[in-house]
Amino acid sequence: MGNNIEALLKPQSVVVVGASAQEGKVGNIILTQVVKGKFRVYAVNPKGGTACGLPLYASVRDLPEVPDLAVLALPAGPTLGAAQECIQLGVKAIVAIAGGFSETGDAGYALEQQLGNMLRGSQTRLLGPNTLGLLVPGIGLDTNFLPAEHMRRPDPGNIAILSQSGSIAVGEMDSNALTGVSISAFVGFGNRLDINENELMDYYAEDPGTDVLAMYLESFADPQGFLERCRRIVPHKPVILLKAGRSEAGARAVQLHTGSLAGSDRVTDGALRQAGVIRVYDTQELMDAARVLAFMPPIDDCRVAVLTNGGGFGIVASDFIESNRPGIGAKLAVLSEETKQKIASAALSFAAVRNPIDLTASLNNAMCDAALSALQEDPGVDIILFTLGFQPPAIDENLIDIIIHWARNGSKPMIVVPIGSDIVLKAMQKFNAAKVPAFTSIWRGVQAIDTLAKRGKMLRKLQAAQADPVETAGAVAPTLQPGAPVGEYEVKAALREVGVNVPRSIVLRPGEQLQAIPLNYPLVVKISSAEILHKTEQKGVLLGIRDRDELEKAVADMRSRFATGDILIEEMEGRGVEMIVGLVRDSTFGLAVMCGLGGTTAELYQDVSFRMVPITRRDADEMLRELKGHKLLEGFRGIQTDREGLIDLLVKISHFGEFYQDDILQMDLNPVIVQPERAVAVDAKILWTQG
Amino acid sequence: MGNNIEALLKPQSVVVVGASAQEGKVGNIILTQVVKGKFRVYAVNPKGGTACGLPLYASVRDLPEVPDLAVLALPAGPTLGAAQECIQLGVKAIVAIAGGFSETGDAGYALEQQLGNMLRGSQTRLLGPNTLGLLVPGIGLDTNFLPAEHMRRPDPGNIAILSQSGSIAVGEMDSNALTGVSISAFVGFGNRLDINENELMDYYAEDPGTDVLAMYLESFADPQGFLERCRRIVPHKPVILLKAGRSEAGARAVQLHTGSLAGSDRVTDGALRQAGVIRVYDTQELMDAARVLAFMPPIDDCRVAVLTNGGGFGIVASDFIESNRPGIGAKLAVLSEETKQKIASAALSFAAVRNPIDLTASLNNAMCDAALSALQEDPGVDIILFTLGFQPPAIDENLIDIIIHWARNGSKPMIVVPIGSDIVLKAMQKFNAAKVPAFTSIWRGVQAIDTLAKRGKMLRKLQAAQADPVETAGAVAPTLQPGAPVGEYEVKAALREVGVNVPRSIVLRPGEQLQAIPLNYPLVVKISSAEILHKTEQKGVLLGIRDRDELEKAVADMRSRFATGDILIEEMEGRGVEMIVGLVRDSTFGLAVMCGLGGTTAELYQDVSFRMVPITRRDADEMLRELKGHKLLEGFRGIQTDREGLIDLLVKISHFGEFYQDDILQMDLNPVIVQPERAVAVDAKILWTQG
Repeated sequence: MGNNIEALLKPQSVVVVGASAQEGKVGNIILTQVVKGKFRVYAVNPKGGTACGLPLYASVRDLPEVPDLAVLALPAGPTLGAAQECIQLGVKAIVAIAGGFSETGDAGYALEQQLGNMLRGSQTRLLGPNTLGLLVPGIGLDTNFLPAEHMRRPDPGNIAILSQSGSIAVGEMDSNALTGVSISAFVGFGNRLDINENELMDYYAEDPGTDVLAMYLESFADPQGFLERCRRIVPHKPVILLKAGRSEAGARAVQLHTGSLAGSDRVTDGALRQAGVIRVYDTQELMDAARVLAFMPPIDDCRVAVLTNGGGFGIVASDFIESNRPGIGAKLAVLSEETKQKIASAALSFAAVRNPIDLTASLNNAMCDAALSALQEDPGVDIILFTLGFQPPAIDENLIDIIIHWARNGSKPMIVVPIGSDIVLKAMQKFNAAKVPAFTSIWRGVQAIDTLAKRGKMLRKLQAAQADPVETAGAVAPTLQPGAPVGEYEVKAALREVGVNVPRSIVLRPGEQLQAIPLNYPLVVKISSAEILHKTEQKGVLLGIRDRDELEKAVADMRSRFATGDILIEEMEGRGVEMIVGLVRDSTFGLAVMCGLGGTTAELYQDVSFRMVPITRRDADEMLRELKGHKLLEGFRGIQTDREGLIDLLVKISHFGEFYQDDILQMDLNPVIVQPERAVAVDAKILWTQG
Repeated sequence: MGNNIEALLKPQSVVVVGASAQEGKVGNIILTQVVKGKFRVYAVNPKGGTACGLPLYASVRDLPEVPDLAVLALPAGPTLGAAQECIQLGVKAIVAIAGGFSETGDAGYALEQQLGNMLRGSQTRLLGPNTLGLLVPGIGLDTNFLPAEHMRRPDPGNIAILSQSGSIAVGEMDSNALTGVSISAFVGFGNRLDINENELMDYYAEDPGTDVLAMYLESFADPQGFLERCRRIVPHKPVILLKAGRSEAGARAVQLHTGSLAGSDRVTDGALRQAGVIRVYDTQELMDAARVLAFMPPIDDCRVAVLTNGGGFGIVASDFIESNRPGIGAKLAVLSEETKQKIASAALSFAAVRNPIDLTASLNNAMCDAALSALQEDPGVDIILFTLGFQPPAIDENLIDIIIHWARNGSKPMIVVPIGSDIVLKAMQKFNAAKVPAFTSIWRGVQAIDTLAKRGKMLRKLQAAQADPVETAGAVAPTLQPGAPVGEYEVKAALREVGVNVPRSIVLRPGEQLQAIPLNYPLVVKISSAEILHKTEQKGVLLGIRDRDELEKAVADMRSRFATGDILIEEMEGRGVEMIVGLVRDSTFGLAVMCGLGGTTAELYQDVSFRMVPITRRDADEMLRELKGHKLLEGFRGIQTDREGLIDLLVKISHFGEFYQDDILQMDLNPVIVQPERAVAVDAKILWTQG
């Protein structure tokens, strides 16, 4: 990379500015750590003297070389001067630790702008300000001003932690390090004045020592750029994200139904799914998911063999595996007779050799070895969950090695749930060192299985998608002029242009007389006007018109009640499953396609799914599968529906959205009736961003 | 208690039968522990000699006294002889450790029956067989054959653990003891040949040293007895239950809709809610819920103040507090200006003094003390969540004491989430010793708040229910004869007798002619026959009959197509919200009332709730609130419904169920239409258990 990011993350030389000999000072804590690194180290402090055995230079100018990286262990004010000096000298990268910038209000914001101005036009890159900085165990780079007795440092591993919050990341590293969880890097980007999460993702996507990206974000520096990177990285390395701030009320206009259903973080959720991100909600979940993906290959199917030495453990684990709430809705493997015989022959007579396999509190090393060996050969088993209480007398530390042996050298992935205290602490360290995923609660262990299954599913999907035909954005562009308010007739005409089914219709403009009607009864008469958003409430819809006589009355009635507006006369559509489809502008990610069950269901059960424009057929299919009411589209109670036609419609609405990418605020097709032969939009509304 | 349970749980004298001097033997491990107890201890082994400094008597007969409790550390076979001897001598209680009984098959079952026969007619009580037995820290009674180096023993505390699985309980005690979690007792009842969970609940309900009952069950020894005890105990002490085995497919007949919706463990869930049990799913959850309830009072409202030293911690915690999925759907407290000023005056200028309150990584003892002090005074705060990373340099161990001070002596309950490694292990021990509920993940901390809120809500409900009028079981008994298959007409007649609204109707028996009809059009004509369960599919329902002419045709049509059966002529009911109401027999708990949204919704969204017969109006109200679609009954989109009428109907269906307690297999009222003025059962079916 020519952008000096490598100088930040793999420097050859580092200077600590604001270094101090005085214990407890930030500049001392940082220097104490940095001197142990595998790079040349310098220390700067105008007071002179020495610190950590190094001479304290008066200024960065005085160093024998221009260092790759300067760590500024200074308050906000002095940080500016030091940064200026570094930039002038051509230092490649700076870590600005100090808080007191934009996060504190107007004065801090101005200070941060000054720092930004300095950087402009230079080659120097800056991490922060307001950050704990970096921890790269492989080269001993550690800028966290946290004393060793307050924070355990992780060993070198293959997980990169990229975090907007330093405290979250160091808290998790510290508690995970107790059991030996290791990382390739932690980078806290704080106020991300210069370097943001996206650039760091680019780096760790290519870093051969990193297999998993574990991220914490409160907002996105560049949402589109983030999604684009995820799409690029996810086929090669998993991206796990804890996106905080999800409870904040969405700032969206809610004039249309689609808008009100897009509340909270549902659009974010759709965008992340679409980009292949694995989403988590707690910091422990973040590290758990990262760890299992860093240690074990994904699984293609999810038939679980549960091995245990306590009946209760096996039952609770099985509940979580087979149930949905709470649980992962997977399956217990059906063991072959051969497998059962092998296990039974090594076990005590009262062991329960089914699945879960309970070797009882008498479990010893030989039984365990035999059982794990037998499970490797069983084609009906995709993954092994070993839930092991360490209390029984026969269990000794050699058992840990037996488990590690099979987890690393066996043909099946394995998850371990060790239950206990002191021995388990030691066991966890051994498991983590050997890259065996172990979790100290049954639920966390079962969730780890789910993570591997999700990753496997995603990879299969990406694989399959490669064979998908390239989707052109529908040759025909709609001719509707954005900006001007439009009635239902115009919206439907535009939909028809892009190939969306709408009822056959004619329109009567004001003053026009009713002529011969080339439509089949029964008909519907509607007022079509940009001013009337909620027609039904105003009795602007007359259904079930059976003949010419009724039609004339309906038109007269409509004209008598509405002074303006066109009259739309449509063929009445037959029954089917009612859906709502729409487009909605999200303040973060832009235009999203929405789909949900129609009627009151979408709203009552919040049963809707979102994807960002543009979507593929595969995305549309996933959107439907995500709905809890999906069964309705799969022949539920014998109801026939043109599910493919609905997918087609969703993709066309996405095309429609592409044409009006910057113009549409919200669009509702409500309902779309999915009939046995076709999906048809029976009502349609649009709100433009402007106009 | 005169039933010798006290002799088991608080013995004055204990003999270990099968005691051994040989290290590693079960009889040695147990004796090693038992000799430390606060009671007289004897040891029996026919080989003689000494063990743990005690003489080994040849037999229980040879002891200087008849001991209260005999712990049989023997294999299954010898257990019988030893038990016989103890029973003959009048030993008050026995713990039978050995496995190899009914859990292993027919031979073991026969052995267990023999043991049961011995006990019959005696005063001796037996715990087990197939159990780890007991751990009562307060008196040093410990029969678990788990060596000290494999299992940490908890200190004396106020949580009683009653468990069907020994391994689950000791695993949890061991891992919890690492952080100093304490208990009043663990009792594993294994195969519960004699003493079961219900009797133990009775004991610990009265035990002054126990404040919380934490239970693990795979099945119920006496389901009705369990529920009855819960109802009695819950007003005084929380009962928390991990009910395992929930994924097992229900063994219910599914001929009616109600039956198919009662699958998996939804009925269990309804029964447990009704009895006030707090249900959990993981062992960690079990101990977490027990601990917070043992340490802190319940809360009446749930406005949470979040205090932290890391912005990210505060945001993640707030997400869990305010969101529903995942989250607890509670509220962040709005802090008073006074509170904010007090906190700000002690904090650094760049601290964020809103809610969450982020004192930043610069948090020190004085700031923390000031913030906790200020929060005590704020009437808008119900509970404090303190999420604290232990990594920053200014944090020292005195902070733990400050937190303990406010948690114990402040006016607000407090939950602590300490994040870190070595210091946190120590801190957890101090917190637990001081009865301050602390949890090492944010989500667990937030769940603890929810547990206190749920307990508060339950106590308020129980309090309010005391003022409820006594509900009589509806003076009128239905006259329907159970057992014989019945058509819709007869079922509805019976419903009318107990006061359930059904449409006005007449019936035409086979051969009867259509006379003048005292009903208002439009009408519905239905075939009413016990043989035809699914009328609609067989076109046995003709709707919207507008006049006499159409009626005659409909009757003729019906008669031409159905050889047998009555013809039911009903007034057609107006529109409303469609519900399904029913009764279903659960193989464990008996007859349950069911309620859900009608149409396809109940089935698609599994949106149903259950309670055991009989229910109160309050139960019925709760059933409705539990439905995700509950809004539909609360004026959603201006829809008017007689919600009180629906509650009335549910209670009457419960009364109906009481009359036919042993007779009804399943009953469907589908739909019940909840109109603005009344709730009316439009269709009704019954299946009897026999007939």
